[in-house]
Amino acid sequence: MDRYLLADALAQGRAERHHFEGLEYVRLTETVTGFPRGSVVLPDGVVVPGYPSIARIQTLSSGLRQQFQGPFWAEEKIDGYNIRVLQHDGRAYAFSRGGFVCAFSTDRLPDFLPPGIFEREPDLVLCAEIAGPDNPYLEGSPPFVTEDVQLFVFDMMRKSRPGFLEQAEKMRRIETFGLPATRIFGRFLPSDVQPLRDLILQLDGDGAEGLVLKAEFGETRAKYVTGRSNIIDIHVCSTQLLDLPPEYFTNRLMRLAMFVTEHGQQGDPNVERSLGQAFLSGLDRAVTASREHGRVDHRYRCRFRERRNALHFIAHMVATGGQRVRIMPGMPREEDGYWRLEFERVFDRMTGTLSTALSGATQFD
Amino acid sequence: MDRYLLADALAQGRAERHHFEGLEYVRLTETVTGFPRGSVVLPDGVVVPGYPSIARIQTLSSGLRQQFQGPFWAEEKIDGYNIRVLQHDGRAYAFSRGGFVCAFSTDRLPDFLPPGIFEREPDLVLCAEIAGPDNPYLEGSPPFVTEDVQLFVFDMMRKSRPGFLEQAEKMRRIETFGLPATRIFGRFLPSDVQPLRDLILQLDGDGAEGLVLKAEFGETRAKYVTGRSNIIDIHVCSTQLLDLPPEYFTNRLMRLAMFVTEHGQQGDPNVERSLGQAFLSGLDRAVTASREHGRVDHRYRCRFRERRNALHFIAHMVATGGQRVRIMPGMPREEDGYWRLEFERVFDRMTGTLSTALSGATQFD
Repeated sequence: MDRYLLADALAQGRAERHHFEGLEYVRLTETVTGFPRGSVVLPDGVVVPGYPSIARIQTLSSGLRQQFQGPFWAEEKIDGYNIRVLQHDGRAYAFSRGGFVCAFSTDRLPDFLPPGIFEREPDLVLCAEIAGPDNPYLEGSPPFVTEDVQLFVFDMMRKSRPGFLEQAEKMRRIETFGLPATRIFGRFLPSDVQPLRDLILQLDGDGAEGLVLKAEFGETRAKYVTGRSNIIDIHVCSTQLLDLPPEYFTNRLMRLAMFVTEHGQQGDPNVERSLGQAFLSGLDRAVTASREHGRVDHRYRCRFRERRNALHFIAHMVATGGQRVRIMPGMPREEDGYWRLEFERVFDRMTGTLSTALSGATQFD
Repeated sequence: MDRYLLADALAQGRAERHHFEGLEYVRLTETVTGFPRGSVVLPDGVVVPGYPSIARIQTLSSGLRQQFQGPFWAEEKIDGYNIRVLQHDGRAYAFSRGGFVCAFSTDRLPDFLPPGIFEREPDLVLCAEIAGPDNPYLEGSPPFVTEDVQLFVFDMMRKSRPGFLEQAEKMRRIETFGLPATRIFGRFLPSDVQPLRDLILQLDGDGAEGLVLKAEFGETRAKYVTGRSNIIDIHVCSTQLLDLPPEYFTNRLMRLAMFVTEHGQQGDPNVERSLGQAFLSGLDRAVTASREHGRVDHRYRCRFRERRNALHFIAHMVATGGQRVRIMPGMPREEDGYWRLEFERVFDRMTGTLSTALSGATQFD
């Protein structure tokens, strides 16, 4: 990106300077000359485009035909967080969706990516999901990652160029480099409603999150999630019922209802009970925590290869999470050749509301 | 109320003039000299005090001792709407919580109240709940009112005097006049946690809403609802998920969780399934209505003794509900000696959101 343009964006508050150890970089907080929020500008002027939002369809029967005019690929949507990985000055970095260097993901890259990729393709940007129970951002994780975290590549970009590599190019590189990647279920047509219904019901049964559909040519994309993924999200987050925006829950209830109706699951006692349990088990955890500790919170744990990355991560958490984040004593702690970090995030409104209600105080509503 | 004070309140927008047939009255939209919002001033300066909000306790174990210092009475809380009934110039009127004459309730008073009460006590104001499936305001109704509506007296006031009649005075009048009244379960002490636990669990099993606890002397009151009543409310209102404030649902989930925890119902599969079904059955009704009619709505029905009261009611609905209210063709219609009214209320956000989603359009969230 042109340095005058960048200076303007910085002056107008549409970009912010940050650094991570020796790397000085700028992240865009709003769109600048076509590069979206979350794009990153490196010291040499190279831009790492922000990862665009993917629109959601709520029904296969009408959604496929309305969104796609030609063939598209169906890939697994994984319940994790999105990073973009690239090399700069001989070192690989992972940037978060918002455009920050993620100290945790950056630290763990050597555990997941084979060496030499960026030596062979210095312009390559890998878009990947990191998912698993021991991640520092999300409370949930996919059923097929049972410990620690894993990395799954699902898109590729080139530095300073908008758009993604075409599907064939991406698949060839995944194979050539031996990259860990999301499952690719195949190529479909807008008329393939039935095969995709079968596929999503299988994913629903497996507890998977859903599908991302990507036009073979062009930019069109859409996501479509399983009914079960909505129940899982509610299950994982009902402990935070009053601390998340209420739309978190109402959107998932709406999607679940449309899924249930589209796939003939109305009145299914397993779906009904799972949904009720999803709300009640998390709320029970919250009530119990409030009675026992006077506080509703969640414990996160993750592990780092390098102690200094754990300290960078802690500094970022404390800076952005403030009072709500409590690093556990003695962390990071060496364990099995890694540096273990555990911290808690307090849910303020749940803590306050339950503490008042359980004390016997009255409330007006 | 002093006429200068009233003129001031009107000038300041803290009161509004209304009329119902020959009756000119003023309702307070804010507190004026201690009389709360919803109080009514009659042409002779008589004030009908607004019915005060009752605070809620969320737990019996800590709530009773914290709120009550002496004996209190436990009465049934009924899922209906609140009216105040009084006589003025030889005619009985029912005022809504907000201080409007309710044409429906006023019309039906002779069906529920024995004659001659106000001749014997002209200053008396009866506070009552009207509940049942055929009421024009609420979607739900108590299980023990299976058709039409019924009226249940639960408090008494005197014109122009703050506060309620004492319990003994009220009970005597209920008996003397033969008034329909809410169930009075008895007199309790703050230490009577166990008997009240037994009582609320019995009410929970019956599908009743809960209890209102009233100090024998003084103003202290508190309500405490069954866990089931929260599930019933969600069941009845999930068709309007996006049209009600989200707190409608989150408050009920919180109360349910505290009830479940206090009464050892954690993990009860019936509670879990009922809660899931409460959300899904209403949402399924909404999705089906959207697919079939392109509109999500609720049909209300009620019946009037007098045709002109039905017309007053329609005028009020149309004035306050606007576009959202659709009176069914040919209404009011004579039926079994009454005037039947049916109308629909459209849920705008559910209608719009489902119509977009089911069309196959994408949404960003």
